[in-house]
Amino acid sequence: MREVAIVGAGMTRFGELWQSSLRDLFVEAADEALRAAGADHVDSIFVGNMSGGQFVGQEHLGPLMADHLGMAGVAATRVESACASGGVALRLGFIEVASGMSDLVLATGVEKMTDGADVTNVLASAADQENEVYHGITFPGLYAMIARAYMTENDLTEEDISWVAVKNHKHGAMNPKAQFQHEVTLEQVMNSTMVSDPLRLLHCSPVSDGAAAVLLCPLEQARKYTDRPVRIVGSGLATAPMALAHRPDPARLDAVARSAERAYGMAHVTPGDIQVAEVHDCFSIAEICCIEALGLLEREAAVKGAVTGCTALGGRIPVNTSGGLKAKGHPVGATGIAQTIEIFEQLRGEAGDRQVEGARLGLTQNMGGSGASSVVHIFEGV
Amino acid sequence: MREVAIVGAGMTRFGELWQSSLRDLFVEAADEALRAAGADHVDSIFVGNMSGGQFVGQEHLGPLMADHLGMAGVAATRVESACASGGVALRLGFIEVASGMSDLVLATGVEKMTDGADVTNVLASAADQENEVYHGITFPGLYAMIARAYMTENDLTEEDISWVAVKNHKHGAMNPKAQFQHEVTLEQVMNSTMVSDPLRLLHCSPVSDGAAAVLLCPLEQARKYTDRPVRIVGSGLATAPMALAHRPDPARLDAVARSAERAYGMAHVTPGDIQVAEVHDCFSIAEICCIEALGLLEREAAVKGAVTGCTALGGRIPVNTSGGLKAKGHPVGATGIAQTIEIFEQLRGEAGDRQVEGARLGLTQNMGGSGASSVVHIFEGV
Repeated sequence: MREVAIVGAGMTRFGELWQSSLRDLFVEAADEALRAAGADHVDSIFVGNMSGGQFVGQEHLGPLMADHLGMAGVAATRVESACASGGVALRLGFIEVASGMSDLVLATGVEKMTDGADVTNVLASAADQENEVYHGITFPGLYAMIARAYMTENDLTEEDISWVAVKNHKHGAMNPKAQFQHEVTLEQVMNSTMVSDPLRLLHCSPVSDGAAAVLLCPLEQARKYTDRPVRIVGSGLATAPMALAHRPDPARLDAVARSAERAYGMAHVTPGDIQVAEVHDCFSIAEICCIEALGLLEREAAVKGAVTGCTALGGRIPVNTSGGLKAKGHPVGATGIAQTIEIFEQLRGEAGDRQVEGARLGLTQNMGGSGASSVVHIFEGV
Repeated sequence: MREVAIVGAGMTRFGELWQSSLRDLFVEAADEALRAAGADHVDSIFVGNMSGGQFVGQEHLGPLMADHLGMAGVAATRVESACASGGVALRLGFIEVASGMSDLVLATGVEKMTDGADVTNVLASAADQENEVYHGITFPGLYAMIARAYMTENDLTEEDISWVAVKNHKHGAMNPKAQFQHEVTLEQVMNSTMVSDPLRLLHCSPVSDGAAAVLLCPLEQARKYTDRPVRIVGSGLATAPMALAHRPDPARLDAVARSAERAYGMAHVTPGDIQVAEVHDCFSIAEICCIEALGLLEREAAVKGAVTGCTALGGRIPVNTSGGLKAKGHPVGATGIAQTIEIFEQLRGEAGDRQVEGARLGLTQNMGGSGASSVVHIFEGV
């Protein structure tokens, strides 16, 4: 396999972007990534998107996006793994370049969620239709059950969960691409509307529009496009039973642990080597579960990570310096690529006020559904 | 890149399969492919599926299908390029094995279309929503315009189009997996209900349920699984403008021509070397356009291919010996893999009454929308 590098990145601001359609969002992000690298063509495009069909009546995003980018003709396809669609797009782009099939690949993600669709029910199609959704549950309920299971087994309080949101909003306030660029207090989080006990409104990532894109090429060609390439050193994709009830322990995210194991193995690193991580906090409880499953912290330390400041900027292992899904926003198909861009910028020393000093090794973890799929990537500044 | 072989195949019968759900169909086909090769595990699964979300409220098919196959844990993702989703699943599986990332990959396709969804409108989400669908057109209308454009430029008659359906039903009558295992006469086709002038009901592929799966591995490991592997020697994916009105000539399928060029180039063969082909006849006119774009016949010969018997079993270049989408059925996400299985069987000498004598080199062409995406594969018996 050839070594692969990221040489350019672009993303829209995340938010309720009423003035932009699905295709507008894509073109804005893809165009920025191409311009950043000074590239005027690509061999192949992967579009990570969860549900263009249900959200805006548009499937077949590969050719549509190639066309609107002015590149009709190139290989292009959509890939989907619910909220992990962006991460999977990165992985397949990585494999295509590593294989030698293509030299220049755009790995992208896009979602347009605010065009009038019944968002909660569309998102629920990422859960097990026959065993879960049919009976009326949607994702806030599923993650509330994960939180309750965790609370039963461990010393986890509503306050611990709330600190995750406080920390991520603090990070997001420094991110000009974030949907919410303001801080929230512990009191505001703890007093926000109950959505699904114990999860409150400010424990939930928002409904967002947005797109993100990165340009990949063989490492040995990277200097043509940038003097600060970032190498992809590990990629792991894994699954777990779809329905929460079919898992041995609903509080344990096995797909996250397996995908991490594969990525660490490929990169020949251990969790302790990671200096900055973007983790899938679709609900604040998820960040705690994922940090543990990734091995970044032991369970007890993961539970208290945001309380002690261990996972904040300046802490032992800064998590979600971008603001995470909670503050940066969560246009589901775009999230995995947006996470990648945060790490790309961190490893290039371009993260501004959010910079983790001296970061050379970073990780992204992007998850689908209630954790039935997870994809982990490890990156190294070169 | 490593050389890649197909070592096992399985598919459901295609048809209105009321008794089987989306996941049942998948498991039946995947299980048959695994058993055929004596394999009890895989490293990765690609699920080609156009619209589980819109058809049955289920996205996130990667982990769902891995789970229901008893393989929760493995890497798995869905890929989508409308009716070319199956072909893209094969291509990405091929690249993953070729790269060295995985050894055993299941490339699959599945669609459940008869569960009550508004099928014509769901399918229309593969066309350009803003420039075409919004104005009321659906696929029969788009392909009728392609047919009219072709008729205007060439000596193409309704009878020429109808012979394609007659030929494919004749082939399908010999295929025990086909949805329609009966012949139709030219008179029946010419007198069938007008759907969108000049296309009649018997020029249109049906609404179908079904699934298909093939198992891929490095060629050098193939003998562990079968004594008759089939090698994938070429793969090409290409796109064209989404909206028919944005193409220089609506009667010319540029994505098909480009994808073929890439596949021929990779395989180091010319169209004249191909001995049997499965071609995307979603409407009978499409078979004529595709045969020309693939270079299998010159335009005039392509137009009269079914009339002269040139594209029938026993003819110079037999096309759609399986019955094609018209008679075999067209569960959209599964079609590209089902095409692959027909060629796999032909090159192994296992096609029974439909066998093309001495076939060693075969081709599949699978198309999305009105031709905005196309994927071509070339296979060699070894």
